[in-house]
Amino acid sequence: MDTPPAKAFQEFYPDDVAHCYGCGRLNPEGHQLKSYWDDGETVAWFQPQPYHTAIPGYVYGGLIASLIDCHGTGTAAAVAARAEGMELTAETAPPPEAPRFVTASLQVDYLKPTPLGPRLEIRGTVKESSPRKVVVEATLSAEGTVTARGTVVAVRWKGGKQ
Amino acid sequence: MDTPPAKAFQEFYPDDVAHCYGCGRLNPEGHQLKSYWDDGETVAWFQPQPYHTAIPGYVYGGLIASLIDCHGTGTAAAVAARAEGMELTAETAPPPEAPRFVTASLQVDYLKPTPLGPRLEIRGTVKESSPRKVVVEATLSAEGTVTARGTVVAVRWKGGKQ
Repeated sequence: MDTPPAKAFQEFYPDDVAHCYGCGRLNPEGHQLKSYWDDGETVAWFQPQPYHTAIPGYVYGGLIASLIDCHGTGTAAAVAARAEGMELTAETAPPPEAPRFVTASLQVDYLKPTPLGPRLEIRGTVKESSPRKVVVEATLSAEGTVTARGTVVAVRWKGGKQ
Repeated sequence: MDTPPAKAFQEFYPDDVAHCYGCGRLNPEGHQLKSYWDDGETVAWFQPQPYHTAIPGYVYGGLIASLIDCHGTGTAAAVAARAEGMELTAETAPPPEAPRFVTASLQVDYLKPTPLGPRLEIRGTVKESSPRKVVVEATLSAEGTVTARGTVVAVRWKGGKQ
């Protein structure tokens, strides 16, 4: 799959937790990352802007970390929903309300500089899953070359002040 | 120290590598993080904007990762410069040209939600240092409470395509 389906995981987040700068559909100034199932994996795409630079010509590492982070929590939401009998896809009616996960830890290895220009692809695989904690491994690629790998430990947001 | 001195590490980066979205003085759309020595540690401050939100009321984790990342590479530049007899401070004349480090790996543990509103403080300590590789441990605090910890492995940028 290299074109997105109708509805992303993040579009199922409840309104009161849909403002994340990285992936919230209700944050007009944010990245609005959108993640989808693609067979057993998850996938998202992102087009960096010219100012998202590190060393000129390459993508800013903080953006790469952010994309892996939000794709990880999105993947966690989708796998936890699935375990509870809900698919976060446009075909599911009525639309489910996704569980919301936040990041407990994030690890990113920058394997090589990521060229600034091409659309980036982020892929996730679920390594560990329980109702309260999901571990997602992710890759980030540019033009088919993996330039960064990461691991996100996502924990379920319980709501309110933690 | 809780007010910055005259000149930050990042202001010594050569012009051709001073465009980082997180800390480049020549990136007008970026965060322009500024890092300084504070006794044996390094320190930086950052004021998040209202849209830098995760769950409403808390700071976006991708921003936290970005701040730790850029403070880590800035600290690496300063410690490598010092090892080569150059201090990255306003008093050093003529102004030295800082070595430039990039991130090989980044680990962030989110200990608790970071309140969105207060100025954030990022502190770095050097755990390992050689001319080509520096390991920096960092904390991020809001109103005196450490909310995230991270480790940055920074490697020296050799210039050109890597």
